[in-house]
Amino acid sequence: MKKAIILLSGGMDSCVSASCAKEDGFGLSFLHINYGQKTEKKELQSFNAIADFFNVTDRLIIDMQYFSQIGGSSLTDSNIDVVKGNIENNKIPISYVPFRNANILSAATSWAEIINAKTIYIGAVEEDSSGYPDCRRSFYDAFEKVISEGTRPDTSIQIISPLIHMSKKEIILKGIELKSPLELTWSCYKNENSPCLECDSCLLRERGFNQANKIDPILI
Amino acid sequence: MKKAIILLSGGMDSCVSASCAKEDGFGLSFLHINYGQKTEKKELQSFNAIADFFNVTDRLIIDMQYFSQIGGSSLTDSNIDVVKGNIENNKIPISYVPFRNANILSAATSWAEIINAKTIYIGAVEEDSSGYPDCRRSFYDAFEKVISEGTRPDTSIQIISPLIHMSKKEIILKGIELKSPLELTWSCYKNENSPCLECDSCLLRERGFNQANKIDPILI
Repeated sequence: MKKAIILLSGGMDSCVSASCAKEDGFGLSFLHINYGQKTEKKELQSFNAIADFFNVTDRLIIDMQYFSQIGGSSLTDSNIDVVKGNIENNKIPISYVPFRNANILSAATSWAEIINAKTIYIGAVEEDSSGYPDCRRSFYDAFEKVISEGTRPDTSIQIISPLIHMSKKEIILKGIELKSPLELTWSCYKNENSPCLECDSCLLRERGFNQANKIDPILI
Repeated sequence: MKKAIILLSGGMDSCVSASCAKEDGFGLSFLHINYGQKTEKKELQSFNAIADFFNVTDRLIIDMQYFSQIGGSSLTDSNIDVVKGNIENNKIPISYVPFRNANILSAATSWAEIINAKTIYIGAVEEDSSGYPDCRRSFYDAFEKVISEGTRPDTSIQIISPLIHMSKKEIILKGIELKSPLELTWSCYKNENSPCLECDSCLLRERGFNQANKIDPILI
């Protein structure tokens, strides 16, 4: 069975992305990154619950606490508050963690070279999202070139972003169609007990469920 | 003064690369990565001694111990011995740490976005070296494109590799010319007290000093 590494934060997008990989017939290896985000404890709990759901035993949890040292984002810097979101403008929000996905994809590629996985799934969303520059398909295309130049000659790795051009509504409907365990996911940037319903991530999730005319299972 | 981030392992190449950046007129910020290498204690000691020499206070030491979790390299995997080197063949050696430099450059770019550095110096050597795929200029060119695609629109970062086409002999002569503190550097992959003189890195260093007709100051 062909192996794929799934970047699984514990959020809804990465969970649906895992369902897509399963649907595509891959054997799943799950990678979770602790990058010093404020809700890491809850995210890790979601990661493990989702991995249990998929019966995935091949799990790697990597520590990138250095993002807290680097700071500059409301997700990782204790001096910057998670602010009330604004998902209507097109500015890059303060929650942007500088070049985070390059760090994550680099680690994923290192692991892929060792376990001989030729595919990496990332649940990035380009349009209906927060406007992070490292969530664009052009970035992943460039990253595939970097992988090709910077690894062993026989290493060939493809980055699949199955949700990249979907809206949040479409992701939710896709998740429901694939029986993705959305009830196990966590999106809030701020709280670990109940969603704040104010941060960018909560607002995008809420709007998605409203547009899909579905009830968010974590709010029941 | 324009800022540059210098990737400083504590080895000879990164030390000479720091001297080049100083010569080029940059204010220096030093970045060191602990990636679980067997000689990290000694390398960190060299890093700090070199930073003291250059009067650099802006130092960031990042932990990437996850390379030990990933394994597969003699530098990071406790189940793989650092073997007697062979610098005459063209094979990628067992010391290759998978995609290591992408992980390091990603972290450097994250830091650069926050401190507003527009330049990163890396002491990579392409020809007269160990044959690691992530030490080739084509890889750094591809990485610049990734930076451009994956960061804020106003972020523009150049990767300078001043030694990329030099031989070890030329690097040593350049270091001596620029009064680089080669006596503070450490290259051995295996030992932290005296160089093993058998690993790839020791062999390359020894051959370089021989070809330059100089005595290695760490052997005096």
